[in-house]
Amino acid sequence: MIGSNSGRTIVMAHRNNQSSFSEISPSEFFYRNRDLAGFSNPAKALYTATRELVENSLDACESTATLPKISVKIRYSEEERHEQDPRTYVITVQDNGNGIDPRQAPNAFGKVFYGSKYRLKQARGMFGMGGTMAILYGQITTSKPVTITTSTDGREFHTFRLLIDIQNNKPIILSRSTRRGVGSSGTSVEMLLHGDFFRASAKIRDYFRQTALVTPYAEITFIDPQGRLWYFPQTTKTVPKAPIETKPHPHGFDFEAMRRLLKQTDESSFPKLLMNEFHRVGKQTARNFLTFAKFDLRTDPRKISNEETVRLVDAMHQFDGFLPPDSNCLSPLGTEILKAGIVSELQPEFYSIAIRPPAAYSGYPFIVEVALAYGGKVIGEGVRLYRFANRVPLLYDEASDVAGQVVSELLDRRAYNIPREAPLAVITHVCSTKIPYKSVGKEFLAERPELEKELKNGLRETLRQLKSYLSRKGSIEAVQRRKNIYGKYLPLIAQFSQSLSGAKRPPKYQGLIKDYDDELAIKVEQIAKTKKRTEGQI
Amino acid sequence: MIGSNSGRTIVMAHRNNQSSFSEISPSEFFYRNRDLAGFSNPAKALYTATRELVENSLDACESTATLPKISVKIRYSEEERHEQDPRTYVITVQDNGNGIDPRQAPNAFGKVFYGSKYRLKQARGMFGMGGTMAILYGQITTSKPVTITTSTDGREFHTFRLLIDIQNNKPIILSRSTRRGVGSSGTSVEMLLHGDFFRASAKIRDYFRQTALVTPYAEITFIDPQGRLWYFPQTTKTVPKAPIETKPHPHGFDFEAMRRLLKQTDESSFPKLLMNEFHRVGKQTARNFLTFAKFDLRTDPRKISNEETVRLVDAMHQFDGFLPPDSNCLSPLGTEILKAGIVSELQPEFYSIAIRPPAAYSGYPFIVEVALAYGGKVIGEGVRLYRFANRVPLLYDEASDVAGQVVSELLDRRAYNIPREAPLAVITHVCSTKIPYKSVGKEFLAERPELEKELKNGLRETLRQLKSYLSRKGSIEAVQRRKNIYGKYLPLIAQFSQSLSGAKRPPKYQGLIKDYDDELAIKVEQIAKTKKRTEGQI
Repeated sequence: MIGSNSGRTIVMAHRNNQSSFSEISPSEFFYRNRDLAGFSNPAKALYTATRELVENSLDACESTATLPKISVKIRYSEEERHEQDPRTYVITVQDNGNGIDPRQAPNAFGKVFYGSKYRLKQARGMFGMGGTMAILYGQITTSKPVTITTSTDGREFHTFRLLIDIQNNKPIILSRSTRRGVGSSGTSVEMLLHGDFFRASAKIRDYFRQTALVTPYAEITFIDPQGRLWYFPQTTKTVPKAPIETKPHPHGFDFEAMRRLLKQTDESSFPKLLMNEFHRVGKQTARNFLTFAKFDLRTDPRKISNEETVRLVDAMHQFDGFLPPDSNCLSPLGTEILKAGIVSELQPEFYSIAIRPPAAYSGYPFIVEVALAYGGKVIGEGVRLYRFANRVPLLYDEASDVAGQVVSELLDRRAYNIPREAPLAVITHVCSTKIPYKSVGKEFLAERPELEKELKNGLRETLRQLKSYLSRKGSIEAVQRRKNIYGKYLPLIAQFSQSLSGAKRPPKYQGLIKDYDDELAIKVEQIAKTKKRTEGQI
Repeated sequence: MIGSNSGRTIVMAHRNNQSSFSEISPSEFFYRNRDLAGFSNPAKALYTATRELVENSLDACESTATLPKISVKIRYSEEERHEQDPRTYVITVQDNGNGIDPRQAPNAFGKVFYGSKYRLKQARGMFGMGGTMAILYGQITTSKPVTITTSTDGREFHTFRLLIDIQNNKPIILSRSTRRGVGSSGTSVEMLLHGDFFRASAKIRDYFRQTALVTPYAEITFIDPQGRLWYFPQTTKTVPKAPIETKPHPHGFDFEAMRRLLKQTDESSFPKLLMNEFHRVGKQTARNFLTFAKFDLRTDPRKISNEETVRLVDAMHQFDGFLPPDSNCLSPLGTEILKAGIVSELQPEFYSIAIRPPAAYSGYPFIVEVALAYGGKVIGEGVRLYRFANRVPLLYDEASDVAGQVVSELLDRRAYNIPREAPLAVITHVCSTKIPYKSVGKEFLAERPELEKELKNGLRETLRQLKSYLSRKGSIEAVQRRKNIYGKYLPLIAQFSQSLSGAKRPPKYQGLIKDYDDELAIKVEQIAKTKKRTEGQI
């Protein structure tokens, strides 16, 4: 037995020693590991595919500051062989965005790691692969091609039918056609996939509702498989300014990026290079920094050694004379949208909003907005958390999100005198030229310390406002209680005194009660001021 | 103002309409999105890099059923310019595995999506990119190359110094050398990276401790930056059989995979194709299936149409005559290792183990093992959850893991009569030829319904055992209480009766107390049997 056993081991060792290494394409990688991109099961896949296509559409509109009109339809496939979920669905998403250059369209939809999102610019899409992953998933579950129609000018409409060659990560164009017409620019995508609407419907509706909440300038129409129409009207015509591409901030610029920059540049002046290539670096800052980093101002940056490059990058991370990132390239929700969303959706008794000043992590600027809603129609025990990142609602994996962690760590009801059962909702929005998602499925944000700090400060701010509101409210209630007691007993005492003393009229006690009315009026006014103040920027 | 504003919008629209699409390499993608692979901050990066290198080493040993000897050292870099964390660290990981073919080594470490892990085989590594990502992170934070020494035979030792060309996703070999010597096969990797040991040390030690727990056949030495030695001795010489590569199970085979199979095959017999290419499909099963799928047995599988392929795959998912996956290709921990780990680490008052029968999701076989420990040295309130996947301890993002969700959903203390404050620990291990991780950082598992079901069944089983133990223990305590009361008062009553009646001797009451002793003995024996039984396979 021992012989045979060890013999077997040797045979296997030999077999395994043949190093069978292989290379796979990016499409192949995500085809094999679809859980990474949010396609774990038919319900999640239907949700993720819908979401990715809608986000591409919204980005396409907002990149040119167009008021978005998005229409989404999910229906049963006619060729369906199953009566029950999971089954084959057809998703159609149409927008009035800027359209896609017909030369780029096949690659944009049929090639992983090919896209327009690889820039320092606020956008919902982050990895440039969501649409392609949805199409890839549709193809492997239904074998059907995707149909894309796009126009950049509203006059020429290009239609493609595509499959993805997964092994080689490139599109296979089955047919293409062009027709002329009169309409608007935009893109329409129609694809089939194996999904489970029964299990996904609640999340999909939540997704649309929350998207509408933070995109009131968009008109979204969603027709579900039962033919029900979900209409989210445009409630404002103010479209946010289109996001601007920005230069990298010197903090967080890494060695690899610096090496590339020095290799590519034609600039021989060190100060000028810094001024041209970095975010908010002026002449004086460039000079101060170079002195700090112990470089001669006349050094030709193209000629510095590897070790000097390391020293340069190192100094960049330590120099505290750089200006903080400018929020011009960011598009936060702002008080108006947050307020409108909270009031319409939660109708709370009290809310407070904190919009934090711009900060940066690894050189990427970001803004954190936190809102807190208390009482009213806020439902349920515990804390309801609504998370958004670049206006995308995040509905999964809350506990792993940095915002989820900050809320569960900071929200100590006793410390803020919040009643134990009182319903609370926290809304967080992070906007950045780069959202630090922890998964390709874009469900939750990494614990970047800078982000954590801003979320904590924002939440603390709103909690303090709530505490102050609750304490004022408590003191109003105390005055009210006292007033009620006096109001009830003073007349009796007065009457009793009158009959006891035989006086003609009871003593005047009304003034005492009126004092309480005055005190109440003052406190109510104070509380109104608190409410007013918390609506503004803090 | 309006004119200037709208003018600006048009300029930007124009600028944005120039579709600036671009393609990036896989290295570039992960360089830009390092949060995806677990490199969010210096602490997490140090932890992830250590873990990825150790897991590669363990896989390299186990693939040839070698008893692993792994030595890990993390030290401060001599060139360090900072006195405090975060700072530059040198990580060295050495193993006695099967080594890497020198022709493959540069790509294996310097190219993303190139590896030996793209096979249906149980391994810690899953994406074939962990080592490369660690090196990439080290390079972008320190600019230093990695040094790799490897030998497949213990006679020729090949050393490479590498950088990664991130833009083109390929290794840059700075130097290579070969020396002859006498030793064992294996690989050693030395790399620098920007890390934070102060913040990472607890997690890193947890990682080693938990790894040692489920790998008692490995000897692991870890020297930390303060020079402290953490030694985890080999406590058994029984190395698990090397994992075997397996064929795909017909359930969960998708259209894309079938299309490729039919394109590549030379087999003209449909039954033979099924028998040769799929897991546990015999002659009779193949025939039954083809009849079910309405294919003539004589059909040449290479000649079926696209629609027929879809029908074939569809039928595969519905046919319930296939045998369940064979667990031969899997290497569960087993009762011995689980028991040894629980006893040494937690010293609980009671524990139960459930090893579930093999199951499959999407055609990948898997086995779930669940253990429950109660009382003793199990520390802390609530439930402590230890999660493992293919013997890898998972230390982050518990709340998003399917096991975390199952525990918080099922573990109702009242339903199982578990005292409210009692310390509880749950250990889960999932082994599979493919672990459905939700992030490239390999921290948590997706909610695959099949996996969820097995985890639930396993946990329920262990909870029922605990309930039965607690109820027996409760009844022992009741008997004990009664015995104590009788033992205290019977002698007094006897004495009182004696003096009252003037008898010479007190009445005999000892028999009454002995009855309780007998009852206790029986119950203690029963409880011992329960303990015994729960240690075996359920």
